[in-house]
Amino acid sequence: VILTVTPNPALDVTYRVGRLERAETNRVRSVVARAGGKGVNVSRVLHALGVATCATGPLGGPTGRVVAADLAALGVETAFLPIAGETRRTVVVVEEEGEEPTGLWEPGPQLAPGEWAALSAHVTELIGAAQVVVISGSVPAGVPEDGCALLVAAARARGVPVVLDGSGASLRRGLAAGPTAIKPNADELAELCGRPVSGPADALAAAAQLREEGAEAVVASLGADGLVAATGAGSWSARLPRVLHGNATGAGDAAVAGLAAAFARGAAWPEALRDAVAQSAAAVLAPVAGAVDPALCRSLRDEVVVTAL
Amino acid sequence: VILTVTPNPALDVTYRVGRLERAETNRVRSVVARAGGKGVNVSRVLHALGVATCATGPLGGPTGRVVAADLAALGVETAFLPIAGETRRTVVVVEEEGEEPTGLWEPGPQLAPGEWAALSAHVTELIGAAQVVVISGSVPAGVPEDGCALLVAAARARGVPVVLDGSGASLRRGLAAGPTAIKPNADELAELCGRPVSGPADALAAAAQLREEGAEAVVASLGADGLVAATGAGSWSARLPRVLHGNATGAGDAAVAGLAAAFARGAAWPEALRDAVAQSAAAVLAPVAGAVDPALCRSLRDEVVVTAL
Repeated sequence: VILTVTPNPALDVTYRVGRLERAETNRVRSVVARAGGKGVNVSRVLHALGVATCATGPLGGPTGRVVAADLAALGVETAFLPIAGETRRTVVVVEEEGEEPTGLWEPGPQLAPGEWAALSAHVTELIGAAQVVVISGSVPAGVPEDGCALLVAAARARGVPVVLDGSGASLRRGLAAGPTAIKPNADELAELCGRPVSGPADALAAAAQLREEGAEAVVASLGADGLVAATGAGSWSARLPRVLHGNATGAGDAAVAGLAAAFARGAAWPEALRDAVAQSAAAVLAPVAGAVDPALCRSLRDEVVVTAL
Repeated sequence: VILTVTPNPALDVTYRVGRLERAETNRVRSVVARAGGKGVNVSRVLHALGVATCATGPLGGPTGRVVAADLAALGVETAFLPIAGETRRTVVVVEEEGEEPTGLWEPGPQLAPGEWAALSAHVTELIGAAQVVVISGSVPAGVPEDGCALLVAAARARGVPVVLDGSGASLRRGLAAGPTAIKPNADELAELCGRPVSGPADALAAAAQLREEGAEAVVASLGADGLVAATGAGSWSARLPRVLHGNATGAGDAAVAGLAAAFARGAAWPEALRDAVAQSAAAVLAPVAGAVDPALCRSLRDEVVVTAL
């Protein structure tokens, strides 16, 4: 089973409006809500592809119950830890006549003293049954800066591969604990390395630097340029030879799901990257953000071009 | 007891942001949620002033449970009818560095066939124990156009006074059922009468027209111009002799609470209008939208100037 850890899960709510007018009252035409947070999204993709997964993280309040009910309805296995605070919502306002969507990100709960320690113990227990661990997304207030790093270390100590997809201080601290792979995008890579990343060559140089800081492999997601991976077994570029038009929301999570599933079955890096690109592309082409179709994944897989660098 | 009927209750959520950037992801700094919908707001004001009240309406889903829990925590008596759909949220985005707030109004549930009939029977039963009935706010999808009118008629048939504070087709149909009072603002008055209302004289003429359509009294709320009332016992203006600066959200609901409480104790019109203006002004001055302070109401009451027109 692939265990996904989402430190700050969410209920992702989409509001459709004609046009968002600032400083006015806007009538929302439709409301769609579903479980979210990056690790939860990874579990949903894995489940859709028939890969055994379990989603964990702290969950609380009425919104937390809606998140749990949504995943239960899909049949995604979960092992959330109840907390006192309320799970956050992210609201995305999509304009039918307008611009790009507008996001409103709630901060999420402040974890009470002891809640992260309890989660950490809970995750460590779940790691015992996991083939691969994915730790993904932002961390809520009240989590120590080395919180995710300690989870990475706990999994690595048991020989379980870990994909870490975080950001900021939490990701930087996590590097030193030796994750099997991290999956930054160009902006995250630039922030981690302190210099601009404008293409595959920059990404490869930055990835080499982060490997020196402790990551066993770095898989950078570069949008239309696909993935660039620097690993102990070599470096590769993996991409589709055509430009896709669609919704990039959730594409990164689908790529992480592809990597994790490949690690779980012991696939070699070129195959893992091929899967990750195909699943990411399927997510871009999905009618609902991040929902991947297994048949589309299989057909895209044959189109992916993997090149040793 | 004053029974308030809210056909489309809400959870009113306030998001505080630095500045709302359209087509960007905005980090929400704080989230505050409380029970809302116009009738619910009237009950909260009455309860704060020590007047016995009971709030009813259709309520459903996880958001409905949060609304019920919020009112229970305040000690406001409720008798909501469970429905299959989910109670709506209204999101107000307040900018710390910016403009007026931006509202996002969810449409609310589509009532299933039979649900409005069940609510109507439920309200009719509650009317038996009510001194005054307040019917306030918008109606959700699935409610017949004469839905509120039939509730007005049911109360009037039992000799119970009714304050109707609605809008659109529902308010127009409700007029013919003979509500004791309606409380339109200038815009609603203009829409009902089909001509502009730009001051107390226009409002009085429009109010006379609506009395011919069936309302026993019309109490128009005109912002800084206070209230203008046309009743079977005479016409009055009631206002504070000074301009207030504050948050007008909920001021109309506080005025309705003042009228309803005055009707419940059999007060004469000038006294009812004095109370309504004082409570409305207290709501404008309240630190939290619509929360009125009893002591402030009493002191403002002495300042209100009531003039026969």
